[in-house]
Amino acid sequence: MAVQAPSLRIILDWGTTSFRALLVDESAAVLDRIETENGIQSIAGDFLGVLQSAIAPWRAAHGPIPIYAAGMIGSRNGWVEMPYVPVPADAEALAAQVKVMPLPEGGTITFLPGLTDRSNYPYPDVMRGEETQLVGFGLDRDLTVVLPGTHSKWARIAGGQIASFQTLVTGEVFGTLARHSFLSKVAKKPEAPDWAAFLKGVAVVRDDQRPAGLLTHLFAVRTGWLSGALSPAEMTDYLSGIVVASEFREAKALGWYGEGASIAVVGDDDLVEVYKRTADAFGLAVVPAVEDAAVRGCLAIAQIAERLRHKA
Amino acid sequence: MAVQAPSLRIILDWGTTSFRALLVDESAAVLDRIETENGIQSIAGDFLGVLQSAIAPWRAAHGPIPIYAAGMIGSRNGWVEMPYVPVPADAEALAAQVKVMPLPEGGTITFLPGLTDRSNYPYPDVMRGEETQLVGFGLDRDLTVVLPGTHSKWARIAGGQIASFQTLVTGEVFGTLARHSFLSKVAKKPEAPDWAAFLKGVAVVRDDQRPAGLLTHLFAVRTGWLSGALSPAEMTDYLSGIVVASEFREAKALGWYGEGASIAVVGDDDLVEVYKRTADAFGLAVVPAVEDAAVRGCLAIAQIAERLRHKA
Repeated sequence: MAVQAPSLRIILDWGTTSFRALLVDESAAVLDRIETENGIQSIAGDFLGVLQSAIAPWRAAHGPIPIYAAGMIGSRNGWVEMPYVPVPADAEALAAQVKVMPLPEGGTITFLPGLTDRSNYPYPDVMRGEETQLVGFGLDRDLTVVLPGTHSKWARIAGGQIASFQTLVTGEVFGTLARHSFLSKVAKKPEAPDWAAFLKGVAVVRDDQRPAGLLTHLFAVRTGWLSGALSPAEMTDYLSGIVVASEFREAKALGWYGEGASIAVVGDDDLVEVYKRTADAFGLAVVPAVEDAAVRGCLAIAQIAERLRHKA
Repeated sequence: MAVQAPSLRIILDWGTTSFRALLVDESAAVLDRIETENGIQSIAGDFLGVLQSAIAPWRAAHGPIPIYAAGMIGSRNGWVEMPYVPVPADAEALAAQVKVMPLPEGGTITFLPGLTDRSNYPYPDVMRGEETQLVGFGLDRDLTVVLPGTHSKWARIAGGQIASFQTLVTGEVFGTLARHSFLSKVAKKPEAPDWAAFLKGVAVVRDDQRPAGLLTHLFAVRTGWLSGALSPAEMTDYLSGIVVASEFREAKALGWYGEGASIAVVGDDDLVEVYKRTADAFGLAVVPAVEDAAVRGCLAIAQIAERLRHKA
């Protein structure tokens, strides 16, 4: 008979295009993982069925392990629409707003709330999932943290809380232009990142003394090629450099960092290196960060939520 | 037997995705037109064959009519790569750089050059085709002219010449985000333009007192929907408003116009109305412009080129 190991938890990273489940112990070590392409948009609403069949082997081995889910699975298009906790907020504030749902086969799934910054212009800004990365990174220093992604987040940690944040649509602008634009029509995507081409794009934006914006700078992808300064193999990384540097330029103009500041770059994919190199090119010092911030943060919020429930 | 009518000319507008030929008289009146989807990218280099079969009826009726071609057909991906004339330039400077190519069946095709602004950062800026619109609009006033498009051009007319210009990649950013982004995933495209939604997007960018840029403003498409301020039916036009207003904001920062200035909007499609309304929202006066500026300009350059050839 399966015996439940009380220190085990399942952390779900269930997004629009993929399903990922991690089996973790209480030190946030990942013991096993399951990844499928059963993203929210492809499963026709069968959340329970997809979840149950994915984690059946773990359930058979360990019994009903508590499940925690942050991110898009708790969005309007997801399983349960979770509220957004307003900033300033810490792990306790997030844990106080979780929603525990019993599962028909026993055990529970607990949805974590998102985070909102209501001071944002023109509408309240929102994040779902990145708040676990911030908690996992740690809220004990006053620092600006950038979380690169489809919709990048710049967050300010202060006084032990997530104090404010702002979204910039960098990854999506780069991705759609790289795949679908005339700008990139002649581009040949290299096997490995061409950092020299990337930094050339970064420098064009960083060094422009004019108050020019992204719409102006983007055309350099084409004029650089036409003038012979850029080869087709360089164009994709050069475009990436222009778009990411535009994010850093906008973030600076909006006060997210000053000249020579220290920032952290938190994430778990190739974008971390892209952003670290951009930060370096902008003269910023990059504070070290753990790679498994999302897992650590989710687990920390889960543990607090369990304590709160135990007390109640 | 077909008799050549010496006052007739064919003007080609042969772009990446479409072929358009206009039969015009010497007053720029369009007597007939042929449109096909034989754009440059779909004809495997058979420029002569596509041209000859398209205009065969006109040739049968009128003999070998002189053909003039501006725009992308004279680009690196086109039939003949034409040079770029540097600014400042007028119609005479453009006419001096045409290239006349005899056709095997008799008659000629004359390619018009493009235009370059070598002062542009970081590489020389370029246009192909829009210079005929500027000539057709008229170079006799000192004025800023915006030519909306996939790659919009802001041009300064001064001293009877095209003095300088700059490209902003507005149409392409809007188009790729409207069609391919997560931002627009829930958008429902309305049948007719929703000008109220468009102007709401314009106002968000125009009225932002912060030095924020496009990457920041774009997320309002999603947060507006999440907060209930925007319906799915409003999102596409709202996105358009944000992107076009960002172009106006960048153009202003770069000195293309000042507070309350007069500008012209020159084009021949729905974007003219979009840009006029944006100019109005930014407090600019819009100078009237003919709709057939490209035809008029191409014809004016053709007539000068013929005089120059006759003299030589």
